Amino acid sequence: MKKIEAVIRPEKLEQVSDALIASGYHAMTVTDVRGRGEQRGIALQYRGREILVNLIPKVKIEIVVEDRCVDAIVKIVKTEAMTGRNGDGKIFVYDIEKCITIRDAKDRAKSEGKDDNSNEGDKKGE
Amino acid sequence: MKKIEAVIRPEKLEQVSDALIASGYHAMTVTDVRGRGEQRGIALQYRGREILVNLIPKVKIEIVVEDRCVDAIVKIVKTEAMTGRNGDGKIFVYDIEKCITIRDAKDRAKSEGKDDNSNEGDKKGE
Amino acid sequence: MKKIEAVIRPEKLEQVSDALIASGYHAMTVTDVRGRGEQRGIALQYRGREILVNLIPKVKIEIVVEDRCVDAIVKIVKTEAMTGRNGDGKIFVYDIEKCITIRDAKDRAKSEGKDDNSNEGDKKGE
Repeated sequence: MKKIEAVIRPEKLEQVSDALIASGYHAMTVTDVRGRGEQRGIALQYRGREILVNLIPKVKIEIVVEDRCVDAIVKIVKTEAMTGRNGDGKIFVYDIEKCITIRDAKDRAKSEGKDDNSNEGDKKGE
Repeated sequence: MKKIEAVIRPEKLEQVSDALIASGYHAMTVTDVRGRGEQRGIALQYRGREILVNLIPKVKIEIVVEDRCVDAIVKIVKTEAMTGRNGDGKIFVYDIEKCITIRDAKDRAKSEGKDDNSNEGDKKGE
Repeated sequence: MKKIEAVIRPEKLEQVSDALIASGYHAMTVTDVRGRGEQRGIALQYRGREILVNLIPKVKIEIVVEDRCVDAIVKIVKTEAMTGRNGDGKIFVYDIEKCITIRDAKDRAKSEGKDDNSNEGDKKGE
């Protein structure tokens, strides 16, 4: 399994998210972050003065997938998040050793050798 | 060292946290995130209409431990965070190459070959 | 490439950030988090009572760099974030498999074999 972590413009989140869903990649985690790239923030005009905004609001998207899906997802995020200007962000790919679904009592039992909460199980859908 | 990262229901944070402390695992980092799983968000009833909530509030817990503690912590998080319904979340395990305690002047000196801030040292407890 | 992830005191963010910039490391991502270390939170006095604050506000800094820069950055963060008291935080180092700059149309084209959004390109600076 791999984790794809992308730090993108907040205004691109919906477009990236819609494109991922359209390609069948539904699962994601989103975090509000602040960031700057190698360009050291941006200079804004405010009431006739220039203000250096050091850390700019961004969103971080995290997607965990099978290795074979990495290239397709990187391509979607890159295409949809890109404006061509500084501040478009970065995509990082990490290796994940294990991925466990909390809801799934079977996996839990396997790794635990017991199943003491299985009466809480109320599996729906998937 | 390994990082255990769990994305869980916010209402399960206290229960998971208490269970970890009860087993002697005190250190953790918590981040407010939004997420969706493979089920593509949830449909809520609001004033007689169905609304699709795309990204649902979650909390991300991060715990860094020795390799030998991973199974015990995964078991605790899985047991305590589970309701059996969609949206219970996931647990990921990552490898960590290095873990440095900022407070520890000794480590710092070792890696730096100097100790210019040691007069700030005000070590208490541990 | 490596990711350096540091969880530090919020009041140390500016000092760490300034020191990194002064050494030529501009790019970073910052997330507001809550955390506790092995000391299990802190006891505060409030209106004559002692209150145990379980999860304390922290900031997480993430910096992605070439392997050869890791030691220099760890040293800067450790020096600047340290007070010598409990709660100074931790630094973790992770391996990153791939790092992609979203803005760069060339990389995108290479990995995609097409360039359908290049008319949006508005490259400035670098």
